[in-house]
Amino acid sequence: MQRIRSVKGQSRKARPGAESKVLRVDTMNQAVVRMQYAVRGLVPTTAEAIQEELRKGAHGRSYDEVLFCNIGNPQSVGQKPLSYYREVLALADCPWLLEKEETLKLFSKDAIDRARLLTSYMAGGTGAYSHSQGILQIRQAVAEFIQARDGYPSDPNDIFLTNGASSAIQMVLTALIASRKDAILIPIPQYPIYSALISLLRGQQIGYQLDEEAQWGLDMDEMKKQLDDARQKGLNPRGLVVINPGNPVGNVLSYDDLKSLVQFCKREGLMLLADEVYQENVYGSRPFISVKKVVRDLGPDYDDFELVSFHSTSKGITGECGRRGGYMEMCGVDPDVMAHVLKLASSQLCSNLNGQIMVDLCLHPPKPGEHSFASWKEERDKIFDGLKRKSKMVYDSLNAIEGVSCQPLEGAMYAFPKIELPRKAIEAAEEKGYTPDTFYALSLLDYTGICAVPGSGFGQKDGTYHIRLTFLPDEDKLEKAMSTFAEHHKHFMQQYS
Amino acid sequence: MQRIRSVKGQSRKARPGAESKVLRVDTMNQAVVRMQYAVRGLVPTTAEAIQEELRKGAHGRSYDEVLFCNIGNPQSVGQKPLSYYREVLALADCPWLLEKEETLKLFSKDAIDRARLLTSYMAGGTGAYSHSQGILQIRQAVAEFIQARDGYPSDPNDIFLTNGASSAIQMVLTALIASRKDAILIPIPQYPIYSALISLLRGQQIGYQLDEEAQWGLDMDEMKKQLDDARQKGLNPRGLVVINPGNPVGNVLSYDDLKSLVQFCKREGLMLLADEVYQENVYGSRPFISVKKVVRDLGPDYDDFELVSFHSTSKGITGECGRRGGYMEMCGVDPDVMAHVLKLASSQLCSNLNGQIMVDLCLHPPKPGEHSFASWKEERDKIFDGLKRKSKMVYDSLNAIEGVSCQPLEGAMYAFPKIELPRKAIEAAEEKGYTPDTFYALSLLDYTGICAVPGSGFGQKDGTYHIRLTFLPDEDKLEKAMSTFAEHHKHFMQQYS
Repeated sequence: MQRIRSVKGQSRKARPGAESKVLRVDTMNQAVVRMQYAVRGLVPTTAEAIQEELRKGAHGRSYDEVLFCNIGNPQSVGQKPLSYYREVLALADCPWLLEKEETLKLFSKDAIDRARLLTSYMAGGTGAYSHSQGILQIRQAVAEFIQARDGYPSDPNDIFLTNGASSAIQMVLTALIASRKDAILIPIPQYPIYSALISLLRGQQIGYQLDEEAQWGLDMDEMKKQLDDARQKGLNPRGLVVINPGNPVGNVLSYDDLKSLVQFCKREGLMLLADEVYQENVYGSRPFISVKKVVRDLGPDYDDFELVSFHSTSKGITGECGRRGGYMEMCGVDPDVMAHVLKLASSQLCSNLNGQIMVDLCLHPPKPGEHSFASWKEERDKIFDGLKRKSKMVYDSLNAIEGVSCQPLEGAMYAFPKIELPRKAIEAAEEKGYTPDTFYALSLLDYTGICAVPGSGFGQKDGTYHIRLTFLPDEDKLEKAMSTFAEHHKHFMQQYS
Repeated sequence: MQRIRSVKGQSRKARPGAESKVLRVDTMNQAVVRMQYAVRGLVPTTAEAIQEELRKGAHGRSYDEVLFCNIGNPQSVGQKPLSYYREVLALADCPWLLEKEETLKLFSKDAIDRARLLTSYMAGGTGAYSHSQGILQIRQAVAEFIQARDGYPSDPNDIFLTNGASSAIQMVLTALIASRKDAILIPIPQYPIYSALISLLRGQQIGYQLDEEAQWGLDMDEMKKQLDDARQKGLNPRGLVVINPGNPVGNVLSYDDLKSLVQFCKREGLMLLADEVYQENVYGSRPFISVKKVVRDLGPDYDDFELVSFHSTSKGITGECGRRGGYMEMCGVDPDVMAHVLKLASSQLCSNLNGQIMVDLCLHPPKPGEHSFASWKEERDKIFDGLKRKSKMVYDSLNAIEGVSCQPLEGAMYAFPKIELPRKAIEAAEEKGYTPDTFYALSLLDYTGICAVPGSGFGQKDGTYHIRLTFLPDEDKLEKAMSTFAEHHKHFMQQYS
């Protein structure tokens, strides 16, 4: 039986014996070969192998399980689903239950009402394809959420319900990248779906470095410089990605930063792509402000400004990753272009209906006075307060380690500490053919069972080394992990200094 | 407010007023602009407008509702979901119900057991990302299904669970099309996702005409001729698509046809893509035979043969389109290539978990002796027998009309009748800027409320005209529709002869 090999270290040459194949590494789409996607790369793959080893027992390791901090997958590490949402989903899938008396013994009254309302929107229930943009009434609900959030109107015709934010991002980049010279500005560090898709679509990425010392804030001079350099090289910059709250860096951008950014994009003729999937994950004093609000605040001159904003059911407090629910709002986009994007969506028929329903639910949770409000709020607060405490604990623990520094964790669900690596460690890494941060992350994994992602997967300033870890696991486990993290760091430094 | 315009008749020129936009029809990805997708094109869009008109009342039309026969969306036109599947889905979403006594009053015992088993596979339940290929145990269940069906082993590592078959098709074509000269052979007529994605990926399509008079069978000489022509033009044919049972033509290929096809692909160095999403929809005497079985029957010389087969939860008797569940099996594909395809899947994290569960359910329905078997079988037989009767009724009705002919409907859920159009109709169509079949389909829609898709959206022999209609609606409605279809045809012929 053939087994899938790890992508790591794979050359573009076909393996011996593959000569007779139609599809080989050297004859397949080279954009796919070149594409990199770190979140599920070498370190997580190694972690899965260790997990398997641990499962078999008699492993001689000092830990009993791998702590998967590599991916923002809350429910895989113990976060509970919000039960009201799940009740509505279940009832929408079994509409015959809505008419039975016994249902009230297992489901809350308002979940039944909500499911009844939702299914009334769907001619064929959850088993039929919807409109390719998504169910109209759910898009209306999204528009209402946006309007309530920003204080400015939103049009359901501008909303696309999608399989997570990922597929929305892919659609927009597919429309935007028209030639090999078309370039997209992305933050460094960034979430690697951007670099991966730009590479897949044969566009060019232009990194703009976030200012680590300024809490990963924007540096507009740096951005302008990168843009000008790219133009001088003959590239055609067309779009700019901002991730706020930040993944992987956990920052929240200020109003002034966002305003400068929007003005910059308008001046420079760039479409702005705002990844706002962590808008609910804000733990510090700085509030989340949507780019849409900043654009509208800027007045009629910006009515035509081209902005696409992404949101998801996978993050926030909901954490429903497996649902693959999400949406994008396309503001100021030419109607002819919108028609082509709709056609692109149509070719995949529609996004999954459970995901669409989850979008509706997490943007419009139970309201005060409704039957499930109290239990929903209790569950929700428990998750949110836990995330907030953990963000603080991880921040404090990391900064207490010599040679490790971490900016305030104001948003999202990640820490992106800088690790000062000794020269001997860097040489040892080179010898093994790893980047120094991969070498460090592999050592951390081996010693502690903590699975983190090397900073090089997200991009980082030359000569600096980071890792990304989520602060999603249970508080007890995470606290213990921070202590073994510190032990490993000491051990590592002793070994390589 | 901007409104999305219809794609129809759209030129590549930007509309007046769009000059200031970054993203315009003339600056966006032209592969997206060129891409066509008929199933949700002009006729369905017009149908939606008429539906809206009907809803408002006082319309003066002879019908009260549009009969959407344009898309294989069973549950949107009255097909009931199979309740056992939905029970399991609901319980997997609300695992706390599994422990409650009252649950037995609303859910069947074996659905509870099945949900308990399924959730035991999922560390984070339905709310967590799974492995990017899909949950291992569900892939094992898929492999068992394939093995039982074909009598040959299947490897779970060769299976990818995907958001419907569409996203699987997109992944494979993305890997396969490496340059503008790379070409894929597709049947004519075909399901337009193939032409759409080949166009989007900037590859070339080579149509091989199915032989209408031979029940839409394969014509190997024609196929060889098309292939040679393409090579002479400097194209590099890399893959061949077969759709069996056929969409849009409703045929089922014979063992001999499939064998010739596999041998042809091996001889010519083509990867074979087998779209088998209608494998359960077989109504005639000819059984469905998977390409995988034919390949394995051919013995060790074909062990290395590169075959990707697609299946889906959207069709069959299940008809769970909104679930976006599906899988592909990649046989004989180079392991290095598999690793890159897995990376491609990873960039979208994973397919939705409800869709993954639905794959498991519809491949392994309740067995004889299990609590839900009788009710499941009753529901299933009702749907299947209905489809079978309707296929016969539609076939008979269409062939009873002078100037309309339809090949036997042995599989899938569509009729693709040939319509002989008088010269005056063709001229009238040209005058209005429509293809003759679009003109006919629009006239049919206007007169009867039946929404069908013009054959030109699927491809057809020059000088022939077809439409595709599903036979999914309720029998009563469909019977009435066939009668108004005949009336319209008579009316149309009187008008244009």
